[in-house]
Amino acid sequence: MPSIAAIRVGSNAGKDQIVIPIDCDSLIDLPTPCVCVDETRLIRNIETVAALAGHGGVAVRPHVKTHKSIRIAREQVARGASGITASKPAEAMVFIRAGIPAITVAYPIVDPRQILALLAAASEHGVAVRLIADSAETVHAAAAANRSLGVRTELQLKVDVGLHRCGVDPLGPGAVEIARMIADAPHLAFAGILSHAGQAYAAVSADAVRRIARQERMIMVELKARLEQVGIAVPGVSVGSTPTVLLNDGFEGITEIRPGNYVLLDRTQSALGAARPEDIAMTVLTTVIASNRHNAIIDAGSKVLSSDRGAHGADRIQGFGSATRLSEPSDGLSDPPFIISHLSEEHGFIPLAGRSLAIGETLRIVPNHACPVMNLADRFLLVQASGRRLIEPVDARGVSFAPISLG
Amino acid sequence: MPSIAAIRVGSNAGKDQIVIPIDCDSLIDLPTPCVCVDETRLIRNIETVAALAGHGGVAVRPHVKTHKSIRIAREQVARGASGITASKPAEAMVFIRAGIPAITVAYPIVDPRQILALLAAASEHGVAVRLIADSAETVHAAAAANRSLGVRTELQLKVDVGLHRCGVDPLGPGAVEIARMIADAPHLAFAGILSHAGQAYAAVSADAVRRIARQERMIMVELKARLEQVGIAVPGVSVGSTPTVLLNDGFEGITEIRPGNYVLLDRTQSALGAARPEDIAMTVLTTVIASNRHNAIIDAGSKVLSSDRGAHGADRIQGFGSATRLSEPSDGLSDPPFIISHLSEEHGFIPLAGRSLAIGETLRIVPNHACPVMNLADRFLLVQASGRRLIEPVDARGVSFAPISLG
Repeated sequence: MPSIAAIRVGSNAGKDQIVIPIDCDSLIDLPTPCVCVDETRLIRNIETVAALAGHGGVAVRPHVKTHKSIRIAREQVARGASGITASKPAEAMVFIRAGIPAITVAYPIVDPRQILALLAAASEHGVAVRLIADSAETVHAAAAANRSLGVRTELQLKVDVGLHRCGVDPLGPGAVEIARMIADAPHLAFAGILSHAGQAYAAVSADAVRRIARQERMIMVELKARLEQVGIAVPGVSVGSTPTVLLNDGFEGITEIRPGNYVLLDRTQSALGAARPEDIAMTVLTTVIASNRHNAIIDAGSKVLSSDRGAHGADRIQGFGSATRLSEPSDGLSDPPFIISHLSEEHGFIPLAGRSLAIGETLRIVPNHACPVMNLADRFLLVQASGRRLIEPVDARGVSFAPISLG
Repeated sequence: MPSIAAIRVGSNAGKDQIVIPIDCDSLIDLPTPCVCVDETRLIRNIETVAALAGHGGVAVRPHVKTHKSIRIAREQVARGASGITASKPAEAMVFIRAGIPAITVAYPIVDPRQILALLAAASEHGVAVRLIADSAETVHAAAAANRSLGVRTELQLKVDVGLHRCGVDPLGPGAVEIARMIADAPHLAFAGILSHAGQAYAAVSADAVRRIARQERMIMVELKARLEQVGIAVPGVSVGSTPTVLLNDGFEGITEIRPGNYVLLDRTQSALGAARPEDIAMTVLTTVIASNRHNAIIDAGSKVLSSDRGAHGADRIQGFGSATRLSEPSDGLSDPPFIISHLSEEHGFIPLAGRSLAIGETLRIVPNHACPVMNLADRFLLVQASGRRLIEPVDARGVSFAPISLG
């Protein structure tokens, strides 16, 4: 049990008053739950994709929705990323203000006010923003904002390659119509086509992921040819998701990849065969707070781990995370990990099945899905190879909601 | 489509730069996604439980994990609540600093540093804190912190009434042992017994919920008698969950109830028969951003709605939320609501099944579970009966993680 002497009671108002120093001897003395990022693995993951891209002759524009950290985005740019990708306008805004030089906002924006604010900030900070569109409405919203500011922004055509979420049908007439609409708009520059094969998360094997990657590439290459046949130049072909990039089918005909999760990785990527246990850079430390004849109870519930079973609703993974004693290697190979079978908001349930966990023990959890966990935390602990620990803010946490003001 | 003239580009650094005023004529012009709380319904829900408690002769100590709002906690105290209940120490800390006079921290705390910080703040702000314990470890942690500060805090014995999460087995020897340990500790005051019948969320009918409420009450009343037989006075018997309070079996033998969700309510409570559609005070506004022959796509995904299927892992509800056009009454009675069938992080999927939704349309979502939605948002819109809208902070958002500092 940690010593009381280590405590410091903060004096500031707000919600961070129980401040417990992280300069204790061992991670075991850290207060929990706590998101930890292993810097060595993080950097290795960034370099792995940079090397893949270099070998394939494509640019990398990683999606920052996974880490939401300016520091990690800068590490990606320092290791060859040509820019970053963000989801919602408010997410992009955090990285525009941080001066990340090039940002794709890969989200259909129908509210011209949000585009206007985005472009005004990009112009102020000298950031090259690229938008996407997949409907007349999104083209009109982008055109209106650009006209109003007197600027000309790059727009990519979002293509549905099988997830059936956003994007034009690559085989339908809409693909050419919307591309033409962008190319013809005086205030927009057509910057090519963009896709996300999120259905790869429902694949049952690494081979199945590779087939989806091949299918995505074929669809995109064929659409590029079709657009060029009707006189629309297609300068860029951008694809990407972590599984289809790590388990790629080659990048012929592709100019850019946009993986996100690869920097942290999680149980989902592991189940897909896209990550080895020793690649997973993000874990959550938790403490056993109760124990009964049914379960051990930990202090990480759905408000820490999220209720995600996987990405895009994939639910082939058992439970809500795996957990290993902190004293054991975190590769999960020595002893089968404990499985978190269900969650309350502030509690996780671990069926013991004959094994034991003592109240007060610290465990390390590999979450099902790293992205929503990062989005629940205000900060994370960056653990460096030297053992030094830094507290880093999750800069873009909570930006999924519209920013509102009293006007 | 909203007019560009309404926009104001903020000048502060940070993540809230796209600020769109909420003084537009209609909710339809609000930027989305946005959490809305209907003040009339909120106050009516608070008064309903206050009346139930008054009639039953029990105190109300509502759980604030649902709303995490100092303003709403004050509304509850102003309408008769004897105090509030919080989960984690950091959650309690927000309300201690706000001067809410009495707070039960209904979470087993094994780290004495966290108790020490809590008690120091409570003493500074004149707040009466009550803790719980269900193991020797949690009693020792509380005793150590109290001894160190020279104070004497009330401790309640947490009892497992069937959820098998935290709490002593009411029929086993541990119940008396831990109660005795608390009663005998010179720095602790035994304040009675406390339970949460969270298994009510898995009940299949209102009658089944009522049976669970009766069972909980019987267990608690019998345990009180058993403790008093061995000479341990039991000043309080505290129970509570929203379904077992709203669908109660009477409160004979009970002294306090601690419902949380009842202030906002959601699809889960509605499915249990504990809420009528017109009672639900929290909804999320969303915009249709894309549409294809399979689905309409909205701008609320799992980072807005959470992936919760229900509370405590209950998953009998279809999909991840129901949605109605903003122009239609939100009681869901006029037209069957659209169902959000699955979620990506920033997108919701609505199968159209022959109906239509236009890109740009605003919908109002009733989430499956209000509590995790509030915990994802930095602020919510409080809509008053006059139509006036206030922006309120979610003061205790994100406190599930341990507060950490550089020491």
